[in-house]
Amino acid sequence: MTRERLYLYDTTLRDGQQTQGVDFSAADKVKIARALDALGIDYIEGGWPGANPTDSDFFRQAPKLKRATFTAFGMTKRSGRSAANDDVLAEVVNAGTGAVCLVGKTHDYHVEMALGISLDENLANIRESVAHLVAQGREAIFDAEHFFDGWKANPDYALACLDAAMEGGARWVVLCDTNGGTLPADVGAITAAVTAHIPGTHVGIHTHNDTENAVANTLAAVDAGARQIQGTLNGLGERCGNANLCSIIPTLMLKSPYRERFDIGVSEDGLKELRRASHLLDEVLNRQPDRHAPYVGAAAFAHKAGLHASAIIKDPSTYEHVDPDMVGNQRVIPMSNQAGRSNLLRRLGDAGIEVDRDDPRLGHLLAAVKEREDQGFAYDSAEASFNLLARRMLGCLPVFFEIDRYRVSIERRYNALGERVTASEAVVAVHVDGERMISASESIDPVTHQDQGPVNALALALQKDLGRYQEYIDDLRLVDFKVRIIGAGTEAVTRVLLDSSDDTGEVWSTVGVSANIVDASFQALEDAIVTKLIRMKAPAVRMAVHG
Amino acid sequence: MTRERLYLYDTTLRDGQQTQGVDFSAADKVKIARALDALGIDYIEGGWPGANPTDSDFFRQAPKLKRATFTAFGMTKRSGRSAANDDVLAEVVNAGTGAVCLVGKTHDYHVEMALGISLDENLANIRESVAHLVAQGREAIFDAEHFFDGWKANPDYALACLDAAMEGGARWVVLCDTNGGTLPADVGAITAAVTAHIPGTHVGIHTHNDTENAVANTLAAVDAGARQIQGTLNGLGERCGNANLCSIIPTLMLKSPYRERFDIGVSEDGLKELRRASHLLDEVLNRQPDRHAPYVGAAAFAHKAGLHASAIIKDPSTYEHVDPDMVGNQRVIPMSNQAGRSNLLRRLGDAGIEVDRDDPRLGHLLAAVKEREDQGFAYDSAEASFNLLARRMLGCLPVFFEIDRYRVSIERRYNALGERVTASEAVVAVHVDGERMISASESIDPVTHQDQGPVNALALALQKDLGRYQEYIDDLRLVDFKVRIIGAGTEAVTRVLLDSSDDTGEVWSTVGVSANIVDASFQALEDAIVTKLIRMKAPAVRMAVHG
Repeated sequence: MTRERLYLYDTTLRDGQQTQGVDFSAADKVKIARALDALGIDYIEGGWPGANPTDSDFFRQAPKLKRATFTAFGMTKRSGRSAANDDVLAEVVNAGTGAVCLVGKTHDYHVEMALGISLDENLANIRESVAHLVAQGREAIFDAEHFFDGWKANPDYALACLDAAMEGGARWVVLCDTNGGTLPADVGAITAAVTAHIPGTHVGIHTHNDTENAVANTLAAVDAGARQIQGTLNGLGERCGNANLCSIIPTLMLKSPYRERFDIGVSEDGLKELRRASHLLDEVLNRQPDRHAPYVGAAAFAHKAGLHASAIIKDPSTYEHVDPDMVGNQRVIPMSNQAGRSNLLRRLGDAGIEVDRDDPRLGHLLAAVKEREDQGFAYDSAEASFNLLARRMLGCLPVFFEIDRYRVSIERRYNALGERVTASEAVVAVHVDGERMISASESIDPVTHQDQGPVNALALALQKDLGRYQEYIDDLRLVDFKVRIIGAGTEAVTRVLLDSSDDTGEVWSTVGVSANIVDASFQALEDAIVTKLIRMKAPAVRMAVHG
Repeated sequence: MTRERLYLYDTTLRDGQQTQGVDFSAADKVKIARALDALGIDYIEGGWPGANPTDSDFFRQAPKLKRATFTAFGMTKRSGRSAANDDVLAEVVNAGTGAVCLVGKTHDYHVEMALGISLDENLANIRESVAHLVAQGREAIFDAEHFFDGWKANPDYALACLDAAMEGGARWVVLCDTNGGTLPADVGAITAAVTAHIPGTHVGIHTHNDTENAVANTLAAVDAGARQIQGTLNGLGERCGNANLCSIIPTLMLKSPYRERFDIGVSEDGLKELRRASHLLDEVLNRQPDRHAPYVGAAAFAHKAGLHASAIIKDPSTYEHVDPDMVGNQRVIPMSNQAGRSNLLRRLGDAGIEVDRDDPRLGHLLAAVKEREDQGFAYDSAEASFNLLARRMLGCLPVFFEIDRYRVSIERRYNALGERVTASEAVVAVHVDGERMISASESIDPVTHQDQGPVNALALALQKDLGRYQEYIDDLRLVDFKVRIIGAGTEAVTRVLLDSSDDTGEVWSTVGVSANIVDASFQALEDAIVTKLIRMKAPAVRMAVHG
């Protein structure tokens, strides 16, 4: 079979921007466009020049792309004027991009109801707008809005709209499931009817996730001959989102029958960068990455079930449909009360702790993990704390410092201006190899000058003076903090999960459990600092005695 | 066309529990099982009796279900012993559920590699295990692990495994895409081959979301004849999750061709409760609901684009594939004051506050709610705090007492016996109609003698002496406490939700938000006490002045 080329069209910066709560700055857009270009995307749609100040700014300071065709979005000209005299269209054309994508209506009801023009006028608008782009030397793309619903209502008219665009000289006509309600079988059948009429090498697909079928709808259209795929990073988009390129790209490259049939612009090395592009978008949006995202999520290759974990160790393909390394991801075998000995060995190996399979201490460690998980510790979410527990039980936990005591106080009162204020203050006393250090800290945000509460105060006091270890923890940062109450009534305890990081960008998670929320936080904090010192290979005072 | 019955099988409590970070308590499982039963799910798989203490507990205290068949999960018997003598299988059978689902291998490679037994032995294990269930009067379900991969490797053997289960008397054989790597076209073709051999009324489908196609794979199997669907609420599950019942159920009920062809156990009224069931699971997991989830997400019917929003006002069907009301959701059009106002009136009515539709104070209240929800307050989950805010804005909030200041300190140290102990102590100063009261309290559990932390200490101090109001609050109890961190970095704040109750058994919820976790808790505590006083019709000192 000869291989065919599939083209990828990213609309994160335009349709993704339609999402409630998403407002990219021009600088954000530059950052994302660069990542998409490096990944190997063919078309990067930057926005709608003239629609809002940010998009206009972005097109003025358009990034130089190495490979991708930079694309402006707009709509077909309005009735009653020529394409050259439509000021909205003019702003789009004036952005000077290599390709321009114009959306137009193809559902007869919408033409008459929303536009209030005749069906023929709409055809003329499409044809003339596209021809205008081509006359300006641009690659023209026609987004056929509501195409599938339009087809169901009036297939001849829907197809006539595509023909009008092709007659105008469009490089692509893109079938848009604007409301996201079309199911895969219908997308396949309707796309096949289109590609029987217009060569699939000119047909694209644009789907939304309102029935959770955006990816499947995209694949169904490719199966039916469509050769351009529109989507967004992480499936960002209005309502339930657009087709997720982070799922589609690995499927096309790694799975049958696509990998045997198609080439795309993404290289094998590019595929390994997909996870980074996905996280970049989350970072720009200040969102926690979805741990369960296909291919790129932190848990996409996490195996919790004991039975699975033992088979995985024998042969990873038993429970993995692709090799995580191919998509720049990695296998995770977390700890949990369902995990068995195989799981434990694997986790210890990952943590760099070598233990013999028959070592009797493994049984003790397994029992300790179970006992502490019954108390509320969650080691599958806090691998760094698991690592410390394992080291303690196996006699290889370095001791750097010992907490003698801490005290934290929180006060709320009215200040001299009659404003209600809160203040937190912590004191921590530690021993470092015989030396005793005592540090105090308030908890005031440097920017807002607001009290940040007792946990922040304790963290600041604890990190203030660790004596000879101080230099190792200067770049330690707390990046996330989660609290969960477990049980109820007098048996309730608080579990705190803490994510920490440093200048390497790596993140490690620790856990603390106590009926006292502050003490649970302090335990997680102490584990975070000890983990940092182990990571830095700081010289220990001694090894902990297991007892 | 005659309508056919499709059966829904929920595995949130078993396969969902395999998810990294998910550890249901037995009480959590009871809560979720009740919601699934009310929804109209046919089978509720509770877990694996004997696999871990929580599952064993849950099956011992199994909830009474009104409609659903409670189902235990396990695996087929091991070789070298009879089904009756397999202790692992015995624990599953002894749970006494109406149905039992046993997983068994159907991929020849796995049988030989992971089990290390002959292909024939595996067939005998399947047949005899299922026959054993049937002999005990149970409905038997066979989960065919790795079925699609097994079919690709050796279709005859994969089918022979299903035949063995049917020969044993299985009600259902369920085709499992265990690794989640099979794409919709293959699921459709292979399921069709199976249903040509075994009637589809005995065939189920169990998919995973590793290529983001779990929902599409499920629909492809139904198209090919499968009549049982396995999935989870919110697609919870190992790695990338299982098939999401919250997307599948509305699609089956509202979309062609399914709504014309099939009946399921969920009623139209039940469908409106789907969103609540989805949120219940998030609440149990202390997760923020996914705003972009199909059908049930807060943004699933949110229209940001100006063009869309104006067409929506003319005719909602232009940009909505289903009516949000059918799935208990609602349309969101930013800046649509009208929608907000009806919503607000409904909330006030629920709180027993009568206001005229045209009262100008409604606009101020709407703005205040929006502003405070932007800060992190969650009034949907804290009706009692919403009630107090509304009363304040509408001039009918009674004032009983005023907090002058509080201080709480938490200390950890070693006691005289060398034991590490924590202690919390709070002091609260209040004014009651000119009189000033100052009370202190430690926080020691009367049974365990353990420190219960700063929030408990504050609650005890605040409830210790409220002067003339003391008699009204004697039976006030805090019954639940939830903490969520919102945002990240320096903008992170803590939201505390507090459930309180009294001797009437009624429960009310209050909320507090602050960067300081203790102050957020204190706000929720104060609202809880004021609500209790209003409930008791305690005479107020005066009414609050809105300002």
